[in-house]
Amino acid sequence: MGKQLKVAVVMGSDSDFPTLKSCIKILKDFGLETEVTVCSAHRTPDKAAQYARNAEKNGIGVIIAAAGKAAHLPGVLAAYTPIPVIGIPIKSSTMDGLDSLLSIVQMPSGIPVATVAIDGADNAALLAVQILSTADENLRKKMIEYKAKLAVKVEEKNAALQEKLTEI
Amino acid sequence: MGKQLKVAVVMGSDSDFPTLKSCIKILKDFGLETEVTVCSAHRTPDKAAQYARNAEKNGIGVIIAAAGKAAHLPGVLAAYTPIPVIGIPIKSSTMDGLDSLLSIVQMPSGIPVATVAIDGADNAALLAVQILSTADENLRKKMIEYKAKLAVKVEEKNAALQEKLTEI
Amino acid sequence: MGKQLKVAVVMGSDSDFPTLKSCIKILKDFGLETEVTVCSAHRTPDKAAQYARNAEKNGIGVIIAAAGKAAHLPGVLAAYTPIPVIGIPIKSSTMDGLDSLLSIVQMPSGIPVATVAIDGADNAALLAVQILSTADENLRKKMIEYKAKLAVKVEEKNAALQEKLTEI
Amino acid sequence: MGKQLKVAVVMGSDSDFPTLKSCIKILKDFGLETEVTVCSAHRTPDKAAQYARNAEKNGIGVIIAAAGKAAHLPGVLAAYTPIPVIGIPIKSSTMDGLDSLLSIVQMPSGIPVATVAIDGADNAALLAVQILSTADENLRKKMIEYKAKLAVKVEEKNAALQEKLTEI
Amino acid sequence: MGKQLKVAVVMGSDSDFPTLKSCIKILKDFGLETEVTVCSAHRTPDKAAQYARNAEKNGIGVIIAAAGKAAHLPGVLAAYTPIPVIGIPIKSSTMDGLDSLLSIVQMPSGIPVATVAIDGADNAALLAVQILSTADENLRKKMIEYKAKLAVKVEEKNAALQEKLTEI
Amino acid sequence: MGKQLKVAVVMGSDSDFPTLKSCIKILKDFGLETEVTVCSAHRTPDKAAQYARNAEKNGIGVIIAAAGKAAHLPGVLAAYTPIPVIGIPIKSSTMDGLDSLLSIVQMPSGIPVATVAIDGADNAALLAVQILSTADENLRKKMIEYKAKLAVKVEEKNAALQEKLTEI
Amino acid sequence: MGKQLKVAVVMGSDSDFPTLKSCIKILKDFGLETEVTVCSAHRTPDKAAQYARNAEKNGIGVIIAAAGKAAHLPGVLAAYTPIPVIGIPIKSSTMDGLDSLLSIVQMPSGIPVATVAIDGADNAALLAVQILSTADENLRKKMIEYKAKLAVKVEEKNAALQEKLTEI
Amino acid sequence: MGKQLKVAVVMGSDSDFPTLKSCIKILKDFGLETEVTVCSAHRTPDKAAQYARNAEKNGIGVIIAAAGKAAHLPGVLAAYTPIPVIGIPIKSSTMDGLDSLLSIVQMPSGIPVATVAIDGADNAALLAVQILSTADENLRKKMIEYKAKLAVKVEEKNAALQEKLTEI
Repeated sequence: MGKQLKVAVVMGSDSDFPTLKSCIKILKDFGLETEVTVCSAHRTPDKAAQYARNAEKNGIGVIIAAAGKAAHLPGVLAAYTPIPVIGIPIKSSTMDGLDSLLSIVQMPSGIPVATVAIDGADNAALLAVQILSTADENLRKKMIEYKAKLAVKVEEKNAALQEKLTEI
Repeated sequence: MGKQLKVAVVMGSDSDFPTLKSCIKILKDFGLETEVTVCSAHRTPDKAAQYARNAEKNGIGVIIAAAGKAAHLPGVLAAYTPIPVIGIPIKSSTMDGLDSLLSIVQMPSGIPVATVAIDGADNAALLAVQILSTADENLRKKMIEYKAKLAVKVEEKNAALQEKLTEI
Repeated sequence: MGKQLKVAVVMGSDSDFPTLKSCIKILKDFGLETEVTVCSAHRTPDKAAQYARNAEKNGIGVIIAAAGKAAHLPGVLAAYTPIPVIGIPIKSSTMDGLDSLLSIVQMPSGIPVATVAIDGADNAALLAVQILSTADENLRKKMIEYKAKLAVKVEEKNAALQEKLTEI
Repeated sequence: MGKQLKVAVVMGSDSDFPTLKSCIKILKDFGLETEVTVCSAHRTPDKAAQYARNAEKNGIGVIIAAAGKAAHLPGVLAAYTPIPVIGIPIKSSTMDGLDSLLSIVQMPSGIPVATVAIDGADNAALLAVQILSTADENLRKKMIEYKAKLAVKVEEKNAALQEKLTEI
Repeated sequence: MGKQLKVAVVMGSDSDFPTLKSCIKILKDFGLETEVTVCSAHRTPDKAAQYARNAEKNGIGVIIAAAGKAAHLPGVLAAYTPIPVIGIPIKSSTMDGLDSLLSIVQMPSGIPVATVAIDGADNAALLAVQILSTADENLRKKMIEYKAKLAVKVEEKNAALQEKLTEI
Repeated sequence: MGKQLKVAVVMGSDSDFPTLKSCIKILKDFGLETEVTVCSAHRTPDKAAQYARNAEKNGIGVIIAAAGKAAHLPGVLAAYTPIPVIGIPIKSSTMDGLDSLLSIVQMPSGIPVATVAIDGADNAALLAVQILSTADENLRKKMIEYKAKLAVKVEEKNAALQEKLTEI
Repeated sequence: MGKQLKVAVVMGSDSDFPTLKSCIKILKDFGLETEVTVCSAHRTPDKAAQYARNAEKNGIGVIIAAAGKAAHLPGVLAAYTPIPVIGIPIKSSTMDGLDSLLSIVQMPSGIPVATVAIDGADNAALLAVQILSTADENLRKKMIEYKAKLAVKVEEKNAALQEKLTEI
Repeated sequence: MGKQLKVAVVMGSDSDFPTLKSCIKILKDFGLETEVTVCSAHRTPDKAAQYARNAEKNGIGVIIAAAGKAAHLPGVLAAYTPIPVIGIPIKSSTMDGLDSLLSIVQMPSGIPVATVAIDGADNAALLAVQILSTADENLRKKMIEYKAKLAVKVEEKNAALQEKLTEI
């Protein structure tokens, strides 16, 4: 496992791409190689099965899978691979994302999917980084720096807010 | 299509069997041949795929699939076969079956699953009968008789109720 | 049953028509004859009863019924006919379609309604095709082709996506 | 309208009877004549239609209808009669009564159902009394007395509670 | 009770007025005298109590009360009067009206509120008409005519739809 | 305001008493005088109004009100008094307490109710203590000690757990 | 405690500021000194802990904390301080605020958060005023005046409504 | 990172232990060293902060945190550490675990929690194994064997089921 593992980003439909852009961007910012694919658990089930079955030997360390409605993609991929699968429930036009969330998070015993928030694309990327950091001290350091920057941004927003308060 | 098509009853876990008994019983009462299988979309994904892929050529006319929680089984089977798939959402220990219902009914465009009520095993059987009746006048007649008997039973219950009323 | 059975598309209100257009279009694309009707379980209950009672002898093989809110239409039609009824829950201005879904899917034992996703008009049509395919090898073949095309479209979208990735 | 109007109590299944007992009891306590029937919107749709169509001329002033799951009975009866229909959503084994509630209360414009709480059998009876009181001063007086007794009971419970407090 | 009883329409906030317009219009179309008031269970509790306490002697036969969020108005009015109270749950900016619905419909035993659909202003008016019809044959006739017109409108919409079908 | 203010504990029904016992116990343990009353917003509305109107001059500093289903009691009391009202949503036999929670927490602008968790009787007492501590340094100290004891108890449970671990 | 206590308004993100403006305005209108801070339970946990730990000695009497989604801020602040914490659940882009509400209100025994309605910024301010009024007769008087003005506004709206009624 | 990383299992209350037993058992079966702690985000916030802050240097590779109701523990731990945190929503006595689920999964951007199903203790353990497998080929192999055994068990259950079928 000397070579840096890749992160696969799989989406059930290309309509999920706008939500996933920030996920892919964050992975790149952390210097991780990504592989982005449209692949449906229902319309291209053989491809989905094949993709997950080969993921490990193709150098993929984590799969991020996003899907909406009856969102089976993350669970189906997880069925075919021993590597960790992160699921992003996508909010669709009805049910406010609750259907996607429950379809992804309520996996039966044996096959976990690491679920993040509805439309939580950023956190899926960060979770992938945290997982790969387990075997990569350099990545761990970048994660620590990332969190430090988050705190700085909150402080900057706080400073900016103080000025707006005078207008009340 | 001269030979009578079979009905496949597939469950994600053998813990679903008690709920499915009445489904299998009704199918038998209508004289339909059934094939009952435990097969998990997540623990035995290859078997599930294979099962659905071969269903048509194995003489199966309708698949009834029951699953709970993140209930992917009906949708996964539907992905691999052109024959109608009926989904039964099983109530599990949390979420009162809402997770199972949404995971089954909210299928994306292209791959329908004919969903019945939570734990609606009887209706899954009856729907299978209705579907196969499309090509089988004899079965259609049995269905009409079944509905007539339902009405009779309601009348009997009504008669029985009238006696209980005196105690109020 | 030599003659091709028709598909009835019944809607509780003409405001459901925009949602149902794609359903009717798909049925036509599969070469099925359709009969489209506005008919309310509550405002024209006699017509609804009459419609369902005569459906079978009028050469209808499957009824697709769409309704919103306290969506009784599919269940009411199913009460009067032995042929399969597919229910489409329509999202209305409140409750995000959950009221329609539960009113349609939670049918009591004895009278099933084959429920598809909220606003799932495409899948209602495809389910009707799958049901009629049980007695029609030609229709079955078209269904298999349809599913193959779905897979091709996913691949095309995947190819298109790869180009967009460079912009991140 | 000189003759006292009757209250019809209709239930979709005799399994609803235990819940409805207190409803029937209250109606009797108010001296109202009741007519209690098991009648299913789905299993005996013709009887349900007939029942509601004839309700007015049979001297019925209010219909109370109880049903669970996809609870269509109150709405279906309301479709066939101009007299007020009160709906009681019955809690069934799944969904905690939310399915019944939404199926009854979310009626489309034109056909109201006066909905009470889930399993709210007492209040259905009291609402029927209130409605018939509109044309019956004597019944109105009984209602006023009933409410006064409710207040007295609360006071008695309050007195009893004060004694229990010492044990804390 | 020779004189025609009035219908009171009470709203918790004037922001509910746009939703209630059609309610008031229908009541007028049926020839009923209305009394429309803004009155809050929380901001003007004494006025609300006083209003309900005097409703009967002020010639009011039915109260229609509309409120949103923690919608206490219908229940609070019902606490102070023996006449029937109809509750309209108003959809507010969050929770899609579910909070209003549950706050109105889930009344405890003893004090019913006749609840209609979320934003169901038309049906509140029609239910008031049905209730007052109990003592008014003329109003009953108008209700029967109203329902007949509803059916005609559905037929007209059906006819109009048939023309639109050619464009698919 | 030299004299210690009392805490009023008001419940809509004596069936709420078992849930409220721990609340009353905690208030006593903190040395606060309590006044416990059964009082219904719907069955004894005049008493409820009177109680809240006189609360301040009767030396009450905080009102804790518990109610279930369409839980109007806390909001109705808050309408009549300027002192803080804490609401406890009681879980009833249906809807798992969601109806009670929304009926209490979703108060419209102008009349707040400080809502705690469903059946959160302990926290209602502790919140009352925190509120009265604002003017009472001694009570504040007790609160700080109480929180310190909570932490100690967690540590004790942690120690006890370590022993149980050996059995796995 | 002679000196007037301040009210801290803490928000998890500056995107909550527009919702909180009316809260801050009301606090100022009541003459209370406020301290407004952006501080995240997750991105700046140390600052949040520090802020709450020092709140009492910094002269803060009540903390108002607003947060959305998995809204931990109010509970985290409450963990570190004995002073009352008011939680405002912020509606975010999914789940309609239900996630924020449950994350704030369902606090375990021992650490209460006084929860107001989703986006209920006004009521958070008024609750803070009510809490501080416990030790401040002058503030109590202002609160009583505020409630009187609310009632006057309702009456004004009622008067204005009467004119609009003529247009129906 | 030569030394095997430990898995920390943290629970908000010792009442969560029965649910977590199978999690700890699975971790042991995979040969992982575990560290089990009761630690509350609200009652022992300093300990929770300290625990997470030191986790990495104490040789912990993954934290599994279980909590119910307003379940802040996983998010609070995640705030203080760069290592992956897995959250288990515990079903409590109300809300069927939905409150716990949303409180854990809906984390804001920046601080992910890898959420598993409600009471999904087994899957939390398996996800931890998957994460640590990223840097441990031996553990990966065990995971692959574990999944193979799952499939075998399904087959055994299927065989057992076939015998039970004869009794229908």
